[in-house]
Amino acid sequence: MSHAGFHVAIVGATGAVGEQMLKTLDRLSFPIASMKLLSSARSAGKKITFKNEELTVEEATPESFEGIQLALFSAGGSVSKALAKEAVKRGAIVVDNTSAFRMDKDVPLVVPEVNEHALHEHNGIIANPNCSTIQMVAALEPLRRDYGLSRIVVSTYQAVSGAGVNAIDEMYEQTQQLLNEEEIEPKVLPVSGDKKHYQIAFNAVPQIDVFQENGFTYEEMKMINETKKIMEDESIKVAATCVRLPVETGHSESVYVEVEKEGLDVAKVRSLLEEAPGVTLQDDPSNQVYPLASEAKGKDPVFVGRIRQDIDEPKGFHMWIVADNLLKGAALNSVQIAFSLVKLGLLK
Amino acid sequence: MSHAGFHVAIVGATGAVGEQMLKTLDRLSFPIASMKLLSSARSAGKKITFKNEELTVEEATPESFEGIQLALFSAGGSVSKALAKEAVKRGAIVVDNTSAFRMDKDVPLVVPEVNEHALHEHNGIIANPNCSTIQMVAALEPLRRDYGLSRIVVSTYQAVSGAGVNAIDEMYEQTQQLLNEEEIEPKVLPVSGDKKHYQIAFNAVPQIDVFQENGFTYEEMKMINETKKIMEDESIKVAATCVRLPVETGHSESVYVEVEKEGLDVAKVRSLLEEAPGVTLQDDPSNQVYPLASEAKGKDPVFVGRIRQDIDEPKGFHMWIVADNLLKGAALNSVQIAFSLVKLGLLK
Repeated sequence: MSHAGFHVAIVGATGAVGEQMLKTLDRLSFPIASMKLLSSARSAGKKITFKNEELTVEEATPESFEGIQLALFSAGGSVSKALAKEAVKRGAIVVDNTSAFRMDKDVPLVVPEVNEHALHEHNGIIANPNCSTIQMVAALEPLRRDYGLSRIVVSTYQAVSGAGVNAIDEMYEQTQQLLNEEEIEPKVLPVSGDKKHYQIAFNAVPQIDVFQENGFTYEEMKMINETKKIMEDESIKVAATCVRLPVETGHSESVYVEVEKEGLDVAKVRSLLEEAPGVTLQDDPSNQVYPLASEAKGKDPVFVGRIRQDIDEPKGFHMWIVADNLLKGAALNSVQIAFSLVKLGLLK
Repeated sequence: MSHAGFHVAIVGATGAVGEQMLKTLDRLSFPIASMKLLSSARSAGKKITFKNEELTVEEATPESFEGIQLALFSAGGSVSKALAKEAVKRGAIVVDNTSAFRMDKDVPLVVPEVNEHALHEHNGIIANPNCSTIQMVAALEPLRRDYGLSRIVVSTYQAVSGAGVNAIDEMYEQTQQLLNEEEIEPKVLPVSGDKKHYQIAFNAVPQIDVFQENGFTYEEMKMINETKKIMEDESIKVAATCVRLPVETGHSESVYVEVEKEGLDVAKVRSLLEEAPGVTLQDDPSNQVYPLASEAKGKDPVFVGRIRQDIDEPKGFHMWIVADNLLKGAALNSVQIAFSLVKLGLLK
């Protein structure tokens, strides 16, 4: 990467994902000429150190994007809806980590290991998929490519950091209160702003995001719809049950998948995943080797293990997929999209 | 129940399940003439209060069962293998909560709401199924009976109390250590006696019991094999992924089920479950009503919610099934078997 650097803005710089975006840009040496940190009015004025320089977070306005070439958004869907097109109007390419534009026909939804080519179709905005979707499609893409996918049934085990810093704080505070045998008063989870709040410490809560008319949550529908869009195949049957756990960071997924072609076995799945970009195989049952959220935290790959062939269905396979939801599930994937844009000559 | 009472023994009286067996016998007023508490040599001598009487736990030996009519075993498979037949030889009926005899052709494996009639075939020993299996078959039996089942795919969210008192202690101690930012040293979970131990606090561990050659754990194979035996249908395709969580008591399950006949919808599933014995429906998404482990603890029913029809497969349904693993998953089911034995005239 010999480019002298780009003028970059991060919208939502004070959030859990924004913090990881900054760290990841630095760690992977993305070429940066200038960095602007933006947020809501509430967080404006905060100081954040980036590359040994203290930056002041500014309130994001349409004018903030003058001169910006790349804007990474992660400040909630309403902020993206209000400002992403303003940024594009001023010449920036937007990589948006919210759900605002993901299902928009004119917006590519990209996991670089799966559909980098879709970036060519962008109209200024590129959407970063939902965290749970990213790690699943990254792990299943090698199977889809060589054997086709007919069916996915996924149950998730999701970390609270996906719901933001307030959710992390609530989990730790509530855990200590329960250990002290004190009363708890849930206020954030399962969904900030929803009518009821439930205990997350020492519990498993089968609600992430609000409910739709059909009984599925939006999080579940994101996994269903985004998987089909990223894999460019509306015929894959996808079903999801999304569950929040008292885990800080690291989403785990129990995935059942049926392939179209015959002839796949566990050894072949392992060898496909060993060669897959962005995937690390951790699958040695006899030595109790399998992915764990506690181990995946802070790491880039999507970890896959517990691979078994279904006992009744020879084209069916089970696996356990784990990734850091703030990294591959969010910040890392956004930064990878930025690198892909440079590589493809779409950002220059 | 007008019987003057039976001579009852509990083997494993000092364990997490044994404690609940005593409480449940008392709470449901099972007719008891005498109560003998048995355990391994290690726990012998402990005092336990039952119905305002202090009882001393004795070491279980073959002779312990002289005069016993009903023996409830929950002290591990090796104890059951060594002593259950000795108890039967001395005239007792054994209800065994371990996996020792569950798949034995001559031993009925019973969830009273599903296959109480199988008790007639007993030869002295009746097996109590695996905790995860019990709650699942209790919830699915009404669907099987009226629509037939072709496929079950289940992912579990299991509590540590299923692994015993040491596992509960480890979870709480480890949680406090992590909150204090101290080093942890896992020694019990995921499987006491296995080679490696992993962090359970703030984590999700995809191993319960040891691994089989086919990559499934024994816990997963228990769910697969026991479901077919209890439902008396080898043709049902069952697949399971079993995961341990930092929850004290209360197993949750994400279940995908396909029925054989057409015509089932969510309203009909709800009405079938509303009428099902032992099942409580908690399913009102618009008011965020669904089962939670934290609410199920200490309660008898199997709670079911999050019922949705699959988007692609009209005969496919998703649901979230939660129960207290020490009660319906173990002690309560064993006591229900005892009541059924009396009702059917098999214990008199």
